[in-house]
Amino acid sequence: MPVFAPPIADHLFILYDLLDFEGHAKLPGFEHCSRDVIEAVLEQSSRFSSEVLYPLHRSGDEEGVHFDDGKVTTAKGFKDAYARLVEGGWPALTADPDHGGQGMPHMVNVLFEEMINGANLSFGLFPGLTRGAYVAIAQHGTDAQKALYAPKLASGEWAGSMCLTEAHCGTDLGLLKTQALPKGDGSYSITGTKIFISAGEHDLTENIVYLVLARLPDAPKGSKGISLFLVPKVLVKDDGSLGARNGVSCGSIEHKMGIHACPTCVMNFDGATGWLMGEPNHGLKAMFAMMNTERIAVGIHGLAIAEASYQNAVAYARERLQGRAPSGPREATKPADPIIVHPDVRRMLMTQRALTEGCRMLALWTAQALDVSERHDDQGERKTADDMVALMTPVVKAFLTDCGVEVANLGIQVLGGHGFIRANGQEQYLRDVRITPIYEGTNGVQAMDLVGRKILHLDLFGSFAKPVQGFIARLEGDERLAEFLEPLAASYDLLEDATRLIRERSGLLPEEAGANAVDYMRLFALTAVAYLFARAAQVSLPKGNADFHRAKLTTARYFMQRILPDTASLHAKIVAGAGPVMEMDERLF
Amino acid sequence: MPVFAPPIADHLFILYDLLDFEGHAKLPGFEHCSRDVIEAVLEQSSRFSSEVLYPLHRSGDEEGVHFDDGKVTTAKGFKDAYARLVEGGWPALTADPDHGGQGMPHMVNVLFEEMINGANLSFGLFPGLTRGAYVAIAQHGTDAQKALYAPKLASGEWAGSMCLTEAHCGTDLGLLKTQALPKGDGSYSITGTKIFISAGEHDLTENIVYLVLARLPDAPKGSKGISLFLVPKVLVKDDGSLGARNGVSCGSIEHKMGIHACPTCVMNFDGATGWLMGEPNHGLKAMFAMMNTERIAVGIHGLAIAEASYQNAVAYARERLQGRAPSGPREATKPADPIIVHPDVRRMLMTQRALTEGCRMLALWTAQALDVSERHDDQGERKTADDMVALMTPVVKAFLTDCGVEVANLGIQVLGGHGFIRANGQEQYLRDVRITPIYEGTNGVQAMDLVGRKILHLDLFGSFAKPVQGFIARLEGDERLAEFLEPLAASYDLLEDATRLIRERSGLLPEEAGANAVDYMRLFALTAVAYLFARAAQVSLPKGNADFHRAKLTTARYFMQRILPDTASLHAKIVAGAGPVMEMDERLF
Repeated sequence: MPVFAPPIADHLFILYDLLDFEGHAKLPGFEHCSRDVIEAVLEQSSRFSSEVLYPLHRSGDEEGVHFDDGKVTTAKGFKDAYARLVEGGWPALTADPDHGGQGMPHMVNVLFEEMINGANLSFGLFPGLTRGAYVAIAQHGTDAQKALYAPKLASGEWAGSMCLTEAHCGTDLGLLKTQALPKGDGSYSITGTKIFISAGEHDLTENIVYLVLARLPDAPKGSKGISLFLVPKVLVKDDGSLGARNGVSCGSIEHKMGIHACPTCVMNFDGATGWLMGEPNHGLKAMFAMMNTERIAVGIHGLAIAEASYQNAVAYARERLQGRAPSGPREATKPADPIIVHPDVRRMLMTQRALTEGCRMLALWTAQALDVSERHDDQGERKTADDMVALMTPVVKAFLTDCGVEVANLGIQVLGGHGFIRANGQEQYLRDVRITPIYEGTNGVQAMDLVGRKILHLDLFGSFAKPVQGFIARLEGDERLAEFLEPLAASYDLLEDATRLIRERSGLLPEEAGANAVDYMRLFALTAVAYLFARAAQVSLPKGNADFHRAKLTTARYFMQRILPDTASLHAKIVAGAGPVMEMDERLF
Repeated sequence: MPVFAPPIADHLFILYDLLDFEGHAKLPGFEHCSRDVIEAVLEQSSRFSSEVLYPLHRSGDEEGVHFDDGKVTTAKGFKDAYARLVEGGWPALTADPDHGGQGMPHMVNVLFEEMINGANLSFGLFPGLTRGAYVAIAQHGTDAQKALYAPKLASGEWAGSMCLTEAHCGTDLGLLKTQALPKGDGSYSITGTKIFISAGEHDLTENIVYLVLARLPDAPKGSKGISLFLVPKVLVKDDGSLGARNGVSCGSIEHKMGIHACPTCVMNFDGATGWLMGEPNHGLKAMFAMMNTERIAVGIHGLAIAEASYQNAVAYARERLQGRAPSGPREATKPADPIIVHPDVRRMLMTQRALTEGCRMLALWTAQALDVSERHDDQGERKTADDMVALMTPVVKAFLTDCGVEVANLGIQVLGGHGFIRANGQEQYLRDVRITPIYEGTNGVQAMDLVGRKILHLDLFGSFAKPVQGFIARLEGDERLAEFLEPLAASYDLLEDATRLIRERSGLLPEEAGANAVDYMRLFALTAVAYLFARAAQVSLPKGNADFHRAKLTTARYFMQRILPDTASLHAKIVAGAGPVMEMDERLF
């Protein structure tokens, strides 16, 4: 019964009608991205996701991964599917052509990642982490490191994995203890234990490249004494062939709520040989340099599962016969009407739909800026786009993953008791997506990054304010757009006021930013989605007779009238401020 | 690491300080409920829950239940724990003394059920369903049925189970097909298949009494042709001893998201012998007569898990060292501060706490009315209380279970990556509690019961309005209470206006009630909790120096300032109405 079919019509609408991908493809390096090529990429990745990865979604959840004396075996079918992924060239989609990549825009990668993770999040994590390792090496590796590792990671022949967390440090990486001792030959001996390492060990590839945070012997305490190392599972000879096994091993795997088919490993580095990447003691900077793409990618995990949950909820709501429509029988010859006639079921489906489409626009809009920040030939344009990316990245990560949880939760409810049954698939979406507001920096940390760093410290609010204010000013008085513009303008005013309030108060009370960060983040994200829905409405209004555009306008209206009002209460909570959050004596909890 | 300790101080505060249990115990039949007795009951059920049931919570989840050729074996320790439950007389807590029960008030039962379900929801379902079957027989059974079954169910020697749902009918029971043919000797032959039957088969008791909805041969179609039957697993001889096995068997058990240690069964009735309970064709009425207590009980499941999740989140937040307080190191000698210093962690803990305490007050306030409706010697008082119960029951069921999901979700987030790991217990709370907004009528159905039946049809809004308006009017101008009264009054005005809007519009558009029901329910529940927190503040203000009362006032303040503002956006959504919910063409989803 479960279904999965990527919504390519919406993908193309956002790319071409909303965000002018024709113009975007004029950026240097994107000359090959004609509409024909992009449509072919989307069609093929849609087929790969739905035909190869989706069939392993439930079975992978049931089987999980096997751990036996350090060896991790993935679920049935994963190895073959991974081989087909590599064969199809998918891991190289955005990689540099110098490393054998296809040099596709981040915008296209967003849609590719939505598809593979929507089909199978556990599977999607393997190439996702590999891409992260590739990007880090491409950005920070020496020429020799790039030559040895980048093409193998770009192709997916080898996999990558990130080793940051230790038992006593997750968010607070300054506490980490893993040691790196220079061996005198330019390499380092890495010793320590890392936990929560996704895809830390598996049987999909013959080598795994770990990016490991560790301390040099003379390193300053705290986060300013952390360096980044490249540690291969199997040592690589100068000619690129594989040598001896390195001193790194998987000690155990976690038993967890979801993403059962992706191993979460305890990784023991026991004098493993590694090489420094980037500057000594600046490992966090190197790691965070690739965090923009990684955090957007995690946001996509939320979007991906939201879409999958929505599709399955709709399919069930069309088929399940129960009760009658409030206005009288819709299918009088059947024993009951399909539950999609019930207003409360529609409320749930429309909420799922509006949040999912909103998340998708937000991700693509941000990915567009990311492309511009990397590719535009004008430095000023790059800087403007880079500021936008810096501002929006935590919003994309946190809002999309929060929505993933909300939408998956609604998906269960639409199915009623059947939503609680494993075979029907909806409960797995909630179990799988529940990690996404946590990994790559919890959403609380994202919210603090937005408020503390991007708004208060770097003063980037203007990067969002400028296009939104411009849009509102340009279209004020447009009668047909008024139903979209007015709620947007009202929310924007609340956001601006909340920004002012937090700025004013944070100097007085250091807790003010943290106490309001999550509510502010949500207020910000809802306003950003309202802006994008208003733009979408502007595009769709003249085409409103076509089914797709009618549906888009209806969804935009639903968002404005039945979701966006949340901004009023978020603003009121921010007005209330940190006082009630901090008042409780610690002992009295 | 996981902890569980029932919050008896809050139990006693709500019973005695807020809701005058001393006065309540003057109701006929409660003469034995002195404060000493109540405190002893709470202490002992707290010990039983934390010492006997809580240790089986994680192990039961991991082991689940075993199904082998119709036989269901519960997880290790369950049988012994159940024997101790019976030995302690716990199932008989609220049962009629005529049936060997202790005749305790519903108010006390709420707290007992909070404890056992907070310790172990899977376990709590067994006595919970048994109690439901007991109540149905005590209310609707013939004298002979009562004599044979009521004492055995009251004591827990036999278990009970409810058999309503069939594959093609959950909410829409009018579609059910199970047949009951008169055998000519006063008994009936029951044939059909029921699904989603909690505790339908198990090894805890030697007999299980099923309450089964089925159709008589001449029954009208739809919900007006359903009768209620009593069907024992093992036939009972006239002398009360057990006879032959009846024609009912468990066909399979479901693999589901949570409550793994409670079997969810497919039950096959294959010419099983049963006896009519209540009037022919009026089975739904009989079943729903006991639904008030059942729905409140399910609400308690949500409250129970909220409390358990909160406790574990607090314990973790006190111990986990990570980062520094915004105002500077709190524990300078340690490598980092406990995360409870971080404003966003406090926001999550305070939200968990305020919702949990609010849910508890709401449940006890409603249970008080339920006691009055059954016990008061004045008919007018009984009627007033009965109206209040009818109005509040769907609110308790839906709001408490929604809060259970929200609070458990926050509990995971407080633990970060550790929240996703099974051994830490937090993820189980979300998996377990996720069924509660579904079973005993989905929360959408509850919301329609509130809006469609209780408000529009029965016009019961006044049952809530009267005490709240009276309270506000009485205390207006009280300066110390103003910070609680003003937000309450503002929310009440929004609720009153939303009630008026839905009333006015529902005549015009039949979808109006359904499209707004869930938002209205939430608006109603938040206002009701605000009323109870304002009353609690009134009690605690004069005692504000004592730790307990200071914490209560802080929590009440947090609720008013950082949760109650949601009423503004809920009202705005109701103002937007059914239009945007219903606009989408069905094909276009």
